[in-house]
Amino acid sequence: MAQDQTTYLSAKESEPSNFNWMEGFPPSEERRLSVADGSFFDFPAIRWSVVHMREMLPTVPVSRGLAAPQDLPYELDQQIDSLTFTPWESNEPMTWEASLWENYTDGMIILHKGKVVYERYFSELTPDNVHAVMSLTKSFTGTLASVLVAEGKLDPEALVTKYVPELKNSAYADATVRQVMDMTTALAYSEDYADPNADVWQFSAAGNPLPKPKDYEGPVGYYEYLETIKKEGTHGEAFGYKTVNADALGWIISKVSGKSVNELLSDKIWSKIGAEQDAYYQVDALGTPFAGGGLSAGVRDLARFGELLRNQGNFNGEQIIPRAAVTDIQQGGSKAAFAKSGHPDLKGWSYRNMWWMTENADGAFAARGVHGQTVYVDPGAEMVIVRMASHPVAANAANDATSLPAYQAVADYLKSK
Amino acid sequence: MAQDQTTYLSAKESEPSNFNWMEGFPPSEERRLSVADGSFFDFPAIRWSVVHMREMLPTVPVSRGLAAPQDLPYELDQQIDSLTFTPWESNEPMTWEASLWENYTDGMIILHKGKVVYERYFSELTPDNVHAVMSLTKSFTGTLASVLVAEGKLDPEALVTKYVPELKNSAYADATVRQVMDMTTALAYSEDYADPNADVWQFSAAGNPLPKPKDYEGPVGYYEYLETIKKEGTHGEAFGYKTVNADALGWIISKVSGKSVNELLSDKIWSKIGAEQDAYYQVDALGTPFAGGGLSAGVRDLARFGELLRNQGNFNGEQIIPRAAVTDIQQGGSKAAFAKSGHPDLKGWSYRNMWWMTENADGAFAARGVHGQTVYVDPGAEMVIVRMASHPVAANAANDATSLPAYQAVADYLKSK
Repeated sequence: MAQDQTTYLSAKESEPSNFNWMEGFPPSEERRLSVADGSFFDFPAIRWSVVHMREMLPTVPVSRGLAAPQDLPYELDQQIDSLTFTPWESNEPMTWEASLWENYTDGMIILHKGKVVYERYFSELTPDNVHAVMSLTKSFTGTLASVLVAEGKLDPEALVTKYVPELKNSAYADATVRQVMDMTTALAYSEDYADPNADVWQFSAAGNPLPKPKDYEGPVGYYEYLETIKKEGTHGEAFGYKTVNADALGWIISKVSGKSVNELLSDKIWSKIGAEQDAYYQVDALGTPFAGGGLSAGVRDLARFGELLRNQGNFNGEQIIPRAAVTDIQQGGSKAAFAKSGHPDLKGWSYRNMWWMTENADGAFAARGVHGQTVYVDPGAEMVIVRMASHPVAANAANDATSLPAYQAVADYLKSK
Repeated sequence: MAQDQTTYLSAKESEPSNFNWMEGFPPSEERRLSVADGSFFDFPAIRWSVVHMREMLPTVPVSRGLAAPQDLPYELDQQIDSLTFTPWESNEPMTWEASLWENYTDGMIILHKGKVVYERYFSELTPDNVHAVMSLTKSFTGTLASVLVAEGKLDPEALVTKYVPELKNSAYADATVRQVMDMTTALAYSEDYADPNADVWQFSAAGNPLPKPKDYEGPVGYYEYLETIKKEGTHGEAFGYKTVNADALGWIISKVSGKSVNELLSDKIWSKIGAEQDAYYQVDALGTPFAGGGLSAGVRDLARFGELLRNQGNFNGEQIIPRAAVTDIQQGGSKAAFAKSGHPDLKGWSYRNMWWMTENADGAFAARGVHGQTVYVDPGAEMVIVRMASHPVAANAANDATSLPAYQAVADYLKSK
């Protein structure tokens, strides 16, 4: 994996309190951030922006309902901070606590057997606000699809066009729902953020909720963009991580359920797990939630979601989503297809229903989003980790070396207790 | 008061379910609404939009905190629907229930002695979503100012420029905080929405969060606009209802408290009244909450706020805000100043701390917003009414004749129980 050689401000140096982004009445020029000029997403401003998405963008709520939140039980373990692990490609051991700073952590919670054993907040994040979860959003989309499959409402072997005929002239015309869920579609679509000509920028322009420039002639909204994607290769052969698949899946589950993704998430999960806070999605100009990366949610609520998965759909003694929806995730995807994908650091992994499957001895699987977001579910260790972060480098390859072995160290420690 | 002679679709005919605004994946062309082209605010689309502001606009939250909501006690009274009253300038009695349809009601709740005796939802509103409260927002701004006065942090007799020196070259240069709170400032500012050259449109352009047109040279953000307002007349003589005063007051209380208006509202009130839902404000491009009209909130939570006022700052046995903050509102404003304002239907009323004081025998006072929003607090009848609506005519003169006598009829009924 190519290393980014840029030198960035450290986690401490880059804290929003050192810059006072958007503070003051009104904020002075140098503190202002904007979506229109892109400053909102630049490092180190992004450390502020990840907990303020709605303040710059239109959003739709994921309602928790009106009932009382269900408190998570606490049994904090002071030993965890001093646990050590060896980062990949290193001989120097690192403490758990040091890894939090190394990875620009904004929030970290660890549940063991359903109890909170560790919880910390940094930078701009607090227990009572929400953080952009980036591509971790995809695992919500995949889980909802898995629920609809388990309920018999969605046939994973059917063609995508059975549910979304609008995609009949696109790459998705001869793809199955399963291939979308596992991202084995063959798409002429580049998601290389470092390439200014990559297709992802046209996708982003289509989904931008701001009024289009006068000379704009491209597709409007996420869905219209999906109709333009061409095929390249053969579906079903290789895992290819492309955000548009999550939006295609979002489209499919909305057509099947008659509900937008945010409503479906509220109905099926968010209103049933005792969530403390509403979550929300950013939307395009047509009100379509960004199913590939637009969710913001609270750390504890993400932990509740992870715990729901760890308990195979059961939460606080109630079966919230079908067990089969979770076992279908846990069976994993094709390791052969994954091996073709160019993730050399994630050897032996697979991808299933928009979850990253470690295929390790603990059966751990994860939702992952750029800049370090994760919900890491480790059934063997009866552990759930949620980390929100604002790492200067988007790709998780930049933080996996000091994250995945750290999670394993905590898992091993908890198993030994 | 001039009558609008336009014929509008009835409440039933104009329900969003007849138009399916923004429904479908994606919504078809004729169902789409947009802030950029103004369709979002047109009748009958506005009946949908009033509960979906955040989906088109950037917003900041008013956090309820993370604690369990405090349930309102219920003692529903089936008699209320059939109560009758005589609308102003009419000889025909009307039932309470008919008045709800007449006024394009979206939500109606009545509390008597703290118990819910009546609650109904229509159109697009449900108990678990929020509604734009329009200018009712001002009464929140005024209440927060009154709290800061009672806490000794804000001097109502001081000049505005003591707190906001940026206003030294504007009409506010020689105005007192009290004059802003009671809207007796003398401003060269027209808020006639029917006049395309009215100043309110420049205020609106300054506050629009969308990127400014390339040739735009006006002020950016609500605050910068306030600096441009010129004086016309003498401060303190006449009540002049001008939204900009509420934004000036929002600026003052932010400078005094060091908190944005949404944070201050959460800290002082919203997190302490057992609210069921977060509320939110729309913001300008600099993240400034629209203190003059940008709040959206749930009906029951607005009722909790009304009940807090009715109980002079006490809620569920706890003094949440100083009693003096409420008694200062309840003492009312200058009737003479009000009489000069051109509200012939509201004879004998006054205006104090951004509340409308009926000065009636019950000592009723109200927060009011265009299209029919109200929180109506009637201490004599131990009653709080919250009505959310989407009346086709903005000015409340269009609905007062079938609203204010209806509220009095319910008040009289409840007093007789």
